[in-house]
Amino acid sequence: MSLQPIHDDATPVPADVLRTWASRCFATAGMTHDDAALLADSLVQTSLWGIDSHGVALLPHYLDRLANGTIKAQPRAQTERTGPATAMLHADQGHGIVVAHRAMAEAVRIAREQGVGAVGVKNASHCGAIGLYTRAAARQGCVGFAFTHANSVAVPHGGQRAFFGTNPISFAFPREGGEPLCLDMATTSIPWNRVRNARREGHALPPDVAVDEKGTPTTDAHAAAAVVPLGGSAYGHKGYALALVIDLLCGPLLGNPYGPHIPPMFEALDQPRQLGAFFIALDPARFAGGAALSAQIEAMAQELAAEPGAPRLPGDPEIEVATMRGRQGIPIESGLAGVFRAYSARLGLPPPL
Amino acid sequence: MSLQPIHDDATPVPADVLRTWASRCFATAGMTHDDAALLADSLVQTSLWGIDSHGVALLPHYLDRLANGTIKAQPRAQTERTGPATAMLHADQGHGIVVAHRAMAEAVRIAREQGVGAVGVKNASHCGAIGLYTRAAARQGCVGFAFTHANSVAVPHGGQRAFFGTNPISFAFPREGGEPLCLDMATTSIPWNRVRNARREGHALPPDVAVDEKGTPTTDAHAAAAVVPLGGSAYGHKGYALALVIDLLCGPLLGNPYGPHIPPMFEALDQPRQLGAFFIALDPARFAGGAALSAQIEAMAQELAAEPGAPRLPGDPEIEVATMRGRQGIPIESGLAGVFRAYSARLGLPPPL
Repeated sequence: MSLQPIHDDATPVPADVLRTWASRCFATAGMTHDDAALLADSLVQTSLWGIDSHGVALLPHYLDRLANGTIKAQPRAQTERTGPATAMLHADQGHGIVVAHRAMAEAVRIAREQGVGAVGVKNASHCGAIGLYTRAAARQGCVGFAFTHANSVAVPHGGQRAFFGTNPISFAFPREGGEPLCLDMATTSIPWNRVRNARREGHALPPDVAVDEKGTPTTDAHAAAAVVPLGGSAYGHKGYALALVIDLLCGPLLGNPYGPHIPPMFEALDQPRQLGAFFIALDPARFAGGAALSAQIEAMAQELAAEPGAPRLPGDPEIEVATMRGRQGIPIESGLAGVFRAYSARLGLPPPL
Repeated sequence: MSLQPIHDDATPVPADVLRTWASRCFATAGMTHDDAALLADSLVQTSLWGIDSHGVALLPHYLDRLANGTIKAQPRAQTERTGPATAMLHADQGHGIVVAHRAMAEAVRIAREQGVGAVGVKNASHCGAIGLYTRAAARQGCVGFAFTHANSVAVPHGGQRAFFGTNPISFAFPREGGEPLCLDMATTSIPWNRVRNARREGHALPPDVAVDEKGTPTTDAHAAAAVVPLGGSAYGHKGYALALVIDLLCGPLLGNPYGPHIPPMFEALDQPRQLGAFFIALDPARFAGGAALSAQIEAMAQELAAEPGAPRLPGDPEIEVATMRGRQGIPIESGLAGVFRAYSARLGLPPPL
C-alpha cells in the first residue's frame, strides 16, 4: 500500500466525525448497525494510515453497489468448517470488508485450537486494504497472512495486455509494545489509481511501470492500458508469478473466477464482483521461537534503525501517518467533499463537512 | 530461480551418472544410503531444471561441511507435533535438503488430516532450491508454500549495507496432466552468485540491482557490496518487506537467528548455519474449488498461452530445460569437472566425467 499525495484543496475532518457519518450512511443503506460500524471503522482506519485509495473515498462506490444490490446489505453469509483447521465463508455477495473480518477472526479461532487455520472466502465483494485483517490477527497474538485478487489491470510478464489484477499480499506479526509489523503490498509496481491520478493531474508516469494497448512501455498516463508486475521489464516475472499464485489461492481454489473472468469494480456496476480472499493465521506458541517472537521483532526494528540509512519496518510509515491524521484529521479533497454532501442529502443525513 | 548461462567449455553428463555418483559421494561422507540418495536426486533435479547455482555445483561445498561436521551426516533430527495442525522439526544441524523434504512430507500428512499443516525447521543447513518441496507437495495433490532465509547479502530499502538474505518464497499447485505450477523466487532482483559470475567474466551488472559499500547504486561487479531488493530503487520497499517477513517466519518464529546473525554459507565454513525453513501444505479438497483446481490451472495456462505474447506459467521454463537436459545431459563446466575429479579421488570413487 502506498501513501497517496494530499491535495491543497483538502479539508481535514476528524476521524470520529467520519466514522460516525460513514456508519450512519451504511446503516441507512440497509446494513445492520454492527456491520455498518465495522465497515465505517475499517474505511476510516485505512484513511488514517494514509491509504486514501482504499479508505473513505470508496464510500460512494460501496453505497452505489449497496443501492443496486450488487453488494447485499444483509447477505445470508455462512461459515462452513470444512476440516479441523480449515473453513469456507460463503459470502452471498456481502460486503468484502465485513466478510474478510469474519474470515480472519475464524482463522484466528482455528489457529488457537489447531496451531494454524486457513479460511477461504467465496462470492464476496472488494475487501479493501487487506492489512486490516492481518493486523487484526497480529493484535490477537497471531501471525496473519492475507491474499486477495482483483480484475484485470496488470500485463503478464511476456504478455501484451492486462490479465491479472494488482493482487495484493499481506503478512502481519505481533510487535512488542506497539502496533503490528505489517507488509501489505500490491504485486504490481504501482496501483492502477496512480495512472488515473496522473491522467487527472497531467503528470507523466515513472518509467517501466505501465504499457500501452500494444504492450509497449509508456510513461504517458493517457496511453497507459495496463500496469506492469513488480520487478518491471527485467524482473517482472516475479511480480507476475506472485499475482498468478494469489489469483489461484483466491479464485480457482475457492470456486471463484480468476483474472479476466472477474467482473470489474467500477466498469460493471451492475454485476456482483464474485471475489475471493484467503486468510491464514498461525499461533506462534506452536513454534520454537514463538514465546520470544514479538520481542525479537522489536529487537530487529531497533537493529535496523541503528543501521546506516535507518531502514524502517513495513507498516511503520502508515503508523506515523495515522498518528498525524489522528491529531490533525483526515484530509478530504473538495471534490470528494462534494460527493459526500450529495450522498448525505440522498440518504437524509447531515454531511460530515 | 533464474536460469544460469551455460559455458562453452561444459561437458554434458547424463543425469543418471551424476545421481549415482553424487549419492555415492554423500554415502561415503557418512550419510545413510536413503539420505544420500535423496540429497543426490534433489541436486540433480535442480540442475535438470537449469538452476545451476543450487544444483550439483554445490556438492563440493556440502562435502566440505559434511567433512568438518558443520553439517551432520547422521543428525538426531526429531519431529515434534506441537499442535493438531503444526509441527517443529529439530534438525540437529542435518543437511537442509534432507530435512526440508521431511518437513514438507509432514506438512502434507497433517494437511490430509486437518486440511492445512504448518511445519517449521530449526537448526538446519542450506536447503537448496525450495521449489523442490512445494513441487513435492503439489505432486501429492496439495498446494505447497515454502520459505527460507539466508545470510546478509541484500541492502534494506532505505539502508546502505546488507542486512537480509535473498530469502526466497515458493508456491506450487497441482496441474492437470503435467508437472506442478511452481513459483520459486528470491526476493532480490538478482542472486548474489550473478555478481560473482560477472566478476569472473568481467561483465558489468544490469542497472539498479546492486550497491557499493556506501550503499550507492553500481553496475561495477567488483564494487558491488550488496544486491537490492526486488523492485529496485523505486519499488524495493516491496522486495525488502517480503525478505523481512520471510526472515521472521524462518528465523525468530522458529527460534533461529535472522539477517546478520546467520552464519554465512561460504565465508564461515567452521560454523553451523543454524538455518530455518517454513512449510505449509493445504488440502484443496477442503476448499470450495478444490475438486476442479488442477483442471482450472490447466485452463488458465491455455488461456494465457492464447494471449498476445503467450505468457507462460511460473515453472514452465524449468520444465522445458529439464526435458532438454534429460535428453542431452547436464552441462558441467571444466572448472567444476576438475573439482568433481578431485573430490572423487579424495573419497576413493570413480569420477562422473
